[in-house]
Amino acid sequence: MYGSIFGTIFRFSTWGESHGKAIGAVVDGCPAGVPLCEEDIQKFLDRRKPGQSRFTTQRKEADQVEILSGVFEGKTTGTPISMIVRNTDQRSRDYSEIAGYYRPGHADLNYDIKYGFRDYRGGGRSSGRETIGRVAAGAVASKVLEELGISVTAYTRSIGPIAVSPERFCLEEASRNSLYMPDAAAASEAAEYLNTCMKETDSSGGVVECIINGVPAGIGEPAFEKLDAALAKAMFSIGAVKGFEIGEGMNAALLKGSQNNDAYRMSENGKVVKKTNHSGGITGGLSDGSPVVLRAAFKPTPSIAAPQETVNRDGEDIQISIKGRHDPIIVPRAVVVVESMAAAVILDAMLAGMTSRMDRIRSFYDLP
Amino acid sequence: MYGSIFGTIFRFSTWGESHGKAIGAVVDGCPAGVPLCEEDIQKFLDRRKPGQSRFTTQRKEADQVEILSGVFEGKTTGTPISMIVRNTDQRSRDYSEIAGYYRPGHADLNYDIKYGFRDYRGGGRSSGRETIGRVAAGAVASKVLEELGISVTAYTRSIGPIAVSPERFCLEEASRNSLYMPDAAAASEAAEYLNTCMKETDSSGGVVECIINGVPAGIGEPAFEKLDAALAKAMFSIGAVKGFEIGEGMNAALLKGSQNNDAYRMSENGKVVKKTNHSGGITGGLSDGSPVVLRAAFKPTPSIAAPQETVNRDGEDIQISIKGRHDPIIVPRAVVVVESMAAAVILDAMLAGMTSRMDRIRSFYDLP
Amino acid sequence: MYGSIFGTIFRFSTWGESHGKAIGAVVDGCPAGVPLCEEDIQKFLDRRKPGQSRFTTQRKEADQVEILSGVFEGKTTGTPISMIVRNTDQRSRDYSEIAGYYRPGHADLNYDIKYGFRDYRGGGRSSGRETIGRVAAGAVASKVLEELGISVTAYTRSIGPIAVSPERFCLEEASRNSLYMPDAAAASEAAEYLNTCMKETDSSGGVVECIINGVPAGIGEPAFEKLDAALAKAMFSIGAVKGFEIGEGMNAALLKGSQNNDAYRMSENGKVVKKTNHSGGITGGLSDGSPVVLRAAFKPTPSIAAPQETVNRDGEDIQISIKGRHDPIIVPRAVVVVESMAAAVILDAMLAGMTSRMDRIRSFYDLP
Amino acid sequence: MYGSIFGTIFRFSTWGESHGKAIGAVVDGCPAGVPLCEEDIQKFLDRRKPGQSRFTTQRKEADQVEILSGVFEGKTTGTPISMIVRNTDQRSRDYSEIAGYYRPGHADLNYDIKYGFRDYRGGGRSSGRETIGRVAAGAVASKVLEELGISVTAYTRSIGPIAVSPERFCLEEASRNSLYMPDAAAASEAAEYLNTCMKETDSSGGVVECIINGVPAGIGEPAFEKLDAALAKAMFSIGAVKGFEIGEGMNAALLKGSQNNDAYRMSENGKVVKKTNHSGGITGGLSDGSPVVLRAAFKPTPSIAAPQETVNRDGEDIQISIKGRHDPIIVPRAVVVVESMAAAVILDAMLAGMTSRMDRIRSFYDLP
Repeated sequence: MYGSIFGTIFRFSTWGESHGKAIGAVVDGCPAGVPLCEEDIQKFLDRRKPGQSRFTTQRKEADQVEILSGVFEGKTTGTPISMIVRNTDQRSRDYSEIAGYYRPGHADLNYDIKYGFRDYRGGGRSSGRETIGRVAAGAVASKVLEELGISVTAYTRSIGPIAVSPERFCLEEASRNSLYMPDAAAASEAAEYLNTCMKETDSSGGVVECIINGVPAGIGEPAFEKLDAALAKAMFSIGAVKGFEIGEGMNAALLKGSQNNDAYRMSENGKVVKKTNHSGGITGGLSDGSPVVLRAAFKPTPSIAAPQETVNRDGEDIQISIKGRHDPIIVPRAVVVVESMAAAVILDAMLAGMTSRMDRIRSFYDLP
Repeated sequence: MYGSIFGTIFRFSTWGESHGKAIGAVVDGCPAGVPLCEEDIQKFLDRRKPGQSRFTTQRKEADQVEILSGVFEGKTTGTPISMIVRNTDQRSRDYSEIAGYYRPGHADLNYDIKYGFRDYRGGGRSSGRETIGRVAAGAVASKVLEELGISVTAYTRSIGPIAVSPERFCLEEASRNSLYMPDAAAASEAAEYLNTCMKETDSSGGVVECIINGVPAGIGEPAFEKLDAALAKAMFSIGAVKGFEIGEGMNAALLKGSQNNDAYRMSENGKVVKKTNHSGGITGGLSDGSPVVLRAAFKPTPSIAAPQETVNRDGEDIQISIKGRHDPIIVPRAVVVVESMAAAVILDAMLAGMTSRMDRIRSFYDLP
Repeated sequence: MYGSIFGTIFRFSTWGESHGKAIGAVVDGCPAGVPLCEEDIQKFLDRRKPGQSRFTTQRKEADQVEILSGVFEGKTTGTPISMIVRNTDQRSRDYSEIAGYYRPGHADLNYDIKYGFRDYRGGGRSSGRETIGRVAAGAVASKVLEELGISVTAYTRSIGPIAVSPERFCLEEASRNSLYMPDAAAASEAAEYLNTCMKETDSSGGVVECIINGVPAGIGEPAFEKLDAALAKAMFSIGAVKGFEIGEGMNAALLKGSQNNDAYRMSENGKVVKKTNHSGGITGGLSDGSPVVLRAAFKPTPSIAAPQETVNRDGEDIQISIKGRHDPIIVPRAVVVVESMAAAVILDAMLAGMTSRMDRIRSFYDLP
Repeated sequence: MYGSIFGTIFRFSTWGESHGKAIGAVVDGCPAGVPLCEEDIQKFLDRRKPGQSRFTTQRKEADQVEILSGVFEGKTTGTPISMIVRNTDQRSRDYSEIAGYYRPGHADLNYDIKYGFRDYRGGGRSSGRETIGRVAAGAVASKVLEELGISVTAYTRSIGPIAVSPERFCLEEASRNSLYMPDAAAASEAAEYLNTCMKETDSSGGVVECIINGVPAGIGEPAFEKLDAALAKAMFSIGAVKGFEIGEGMNAALLKGSQNNDAYRMSENGKVVKKTNHSGGITGGLSDGSPVVLRAAFKPTPSIAAPQETVNRDGEDIQISIKGRHDPIIVPRAVVVVESMAAAVILDAMLAGMTSRMDRIRSFYDLP
């Protein structure tokens, strides 16, 4: 395996297992001179922390971050930023059961085939706790973007069949309910739906939406490193994502060109603007100056207490019922993960995009 | 810009503009000993060639490939395989019009911002002809996979609102109609729909689906290099893709865990099999032994003759009507592009996945 | 900056400053199933630890490693291995002096230009303590290689003008003296030479040599990823290296073809062997079955107490005398760094080299 | 195999065999707006072309380059630049002899082990003709650097025991003799030495030196992507290089700190300058504002007519005498190859180095 390193210029490496000693990330390639402190990271980690509502696992983790390097006198130095979160609630229960069979919807079987064995304690590296490293790194990226006047905001768009209504959409509301839905009515309807799922010892899927404002036009690269391609990879690298959309997304397939094209007009202050944003802020793989709009669909939590058919390591058909502290839905805690990965991609593309023009290189290096 | 190189072990570099001298690809990292000839590549290129039906541009291009390196005595040698396709029909028409304004739904404006100027002839590098390099490289990957017993098959799943019916689904049919739809009735309905679009000087979107059989379980890497993440990036790197799905895709968000999980059972010949394939062949980012199933949604062709609002380089609001030889739909010719990119991803992941286990490394190098 | 990540398949990310909280490394891409414990790493770190003799800095650091992830039940799992070493002796002295000027032979000025400011405490990231991360990662690589029957051994070849004599060469001796010289007489002569240097408040350069036994033939890649190119980069990435050689090295320029070519012969047990090893085990960028032999020349420690001319941040010419706990020679402590980087390169190349032949891929995946 | 792609931002892919149809390179990541024409490339290729003197192979190749993409109206567009050189003199002689045995000093045996078979015609991809792709790509890099006021100049420093004298050093002279030596007397002495080698059916090694003027300070990255590390890899990736030095090189090992350190002083126009350049323009892995000075040692041409011992594919000891058109020395034709690789590294590092400071990023994107 290799695969725990993300990005080209702004690159980070994440590590850690659910029941290991700690989890963390190392960010390489962060520009120097960015104000950064542990609180900047902690705010992000707190949003993915378990135990925020009755719809998240009751595992108790402080998820307290420590910055170990890369910051001097309150600013990034350009050297790698190492961040660590100690695991504290590694409940010493018996894992022999889970070790012996393959949970449906999980990668247990695939890991055994790939590596010969696996760290079965709480899912090991394939646990949702793996996202702590992403969120820590993404918090750094978000801080850099914030300094550059770019904002990344994600929220829950739907839970099972309950979607946010465009009419009631209110971004501030998203931070007021524990489901992170920007629509109070939808949030309470969704809470009811989740209650039903939990009673049925079942779980639910959902969709996270993310909007990025302030991205300059021309970010991303043609061909294989398109901005939307990088975002697609980032989102699909989050466990449980099964669908990804930019702008009109899958719906674009149903439209006609006259419906889907965004007309250009001159704004009053002499800038080129788009009248609509069907493109979701990316045209031809490059940012087009409009807000970037993306959506990621998450499958329902695979760990359910309802009885399921599977096989054990001895090759026998068995029936199981998965115990433990599992979220009935992944989406609310995934909101900040989506935001973090999106921030990392946008920043990386902005840094990589600084070399496209001779005139700019010359002025950058103050050359004649 | 950088961004015309794809892959990690099986890597290819593509190049060429719509109205340049030629278009091509260089494949680095192909294993040695694979039988390969120009006909293997040509078969793929012929499927994306213009002029196959009245629904594709009438530009006349032979799109004849020449292999320039990397093959000796009919087999790959392990050295880079360079392939070239000369452009022959570069109609010498006046491009001053298109050079002067920004086409809606295209990246003209973004390119000007990014690079300071652009090769406006036929879209330059952002033309659909860019995919010739991908298809050539993908044909090589497909050939390698074929030798390994793995097949990659794509087809048109829907055109505008007309979708293939599961009941009438017949894979052989896909190669019998010019829309590549595995359902004869849907194909003729779609043809009618496209006729209407063309009469309205409009265009249509659609969906390509791809099924990959024979992928061993355990392919892909955890964290950021998940197999589905790599496929997502590959598909979104194709111009005009706005949505991507694996298995249940966006629909997974509507399901409950008990509906979406795939149960495991022992098969009669003692193998672990899944009873269903909601996962689309990938669980936890690793192939799970079932067929890989993916879908990419393409937006409608942005170049339409219908009048559109835009601005010109002088910053004036204007109205335009785009002339030229444009496909009313991208999807039928994109089928082989999807197939090519999917093949490249699967092969790359298989090669990268050979280093995960100590026991296998030891036996590979014949070490004690 | 980006640049703290090394390797392609066996990749590691290092982090940490001289006077930060800790220093560490994250190894991504280590095969699963390798027995590994902290003692395996500690043995390596102890060899680069300060205070082993009077020729090394008197800074007191335990340099105790903790493995935080990637190992389960005593074996690597294939997931990232995070290792951390806490800094303990960060003497709270006044750094305002060093902060204000540019030390000759150091990168102070370059860092200020590149990043706008720098962490001046003990050299920050450009301190020799940066090598702790390399050594930790290299210890993992060495362990994997050891399991595969490959050994990497470095030692001091020369200190200033005092070189190991081929006649007296005795590898075991290298671990018996604190200068790591495989020649007891040369070691005591070198100790005297260093004493003189120290009396003169001066420092000395030297050469490290490394021999790698057991590398299978055919490792490395043609063109840009030659095995010797990868080793050259690895060695030059160690601070203070100014020259690098494989086999005959710079001397090859003086030889004739008839002197430099290694003749092939059949051995008694039917293997192809080389009669000589002028090539240093690498021909055409690929390992040729003979031991790999490399040398790296280290410049003298730039921090000397002798008076030196330099400028300060206010742009004034000044004279300085650098105080502090500095090694009069880098070489003895660099021996294990060279060994570590060499091990990482060889392992990475072995893993990357598993995809060159179709027949082997087929058998690896058990395909027909 | 993978390994024919070089660089991070300015990346190129090379391809082609000695006796294939053509050889070429694709440059990805070249900034837009650089004036470029075929003549810019041809000038470089002409310097490595065979047949320039009696000391180079008499193979007749026009080595005429054609640019196929990436240039529009005389300027680079930022898209990949594809360049092709057709092979014309592929003498149809019988290669069965060379196919059957392993030439000493060549990689024949290693290739057979790695790939199972090889293209034996003229060395295939391991032929010196592989450098055509490097030179074409390097010519593009040189052109960009020239536009930025940076010059890269290489020449022959020594041939066998005959070295350029510092007293007689005259750079202009290097372009006046076919050995590219900046010292007329040394050049004629070296010509005599080569005549002797040829009479003895033997060959000679030598050293190429390269000086790069105008590199801004702060280029390169700390840790693993040091500027000297990148140069070391680039030089060692050229076939036949066995040693590499920056500044004092191997000699630094013999010096004391007081001898090797470069003192800083303020220049009359208020700039920080170094009084000496023992560092060779790179300190701590970053350019220090002085000229970059590097040397690469080339082994003698391994193909010699003098009798040699080797084995054949049937495992028999044999004696051979290699026929064909071989250079008695690699160095004079390698001069432009060294220059090309150096140019590519410097440009790549300059582009990658544009992201280190927050203030610069902000001003680059015109952000508040």
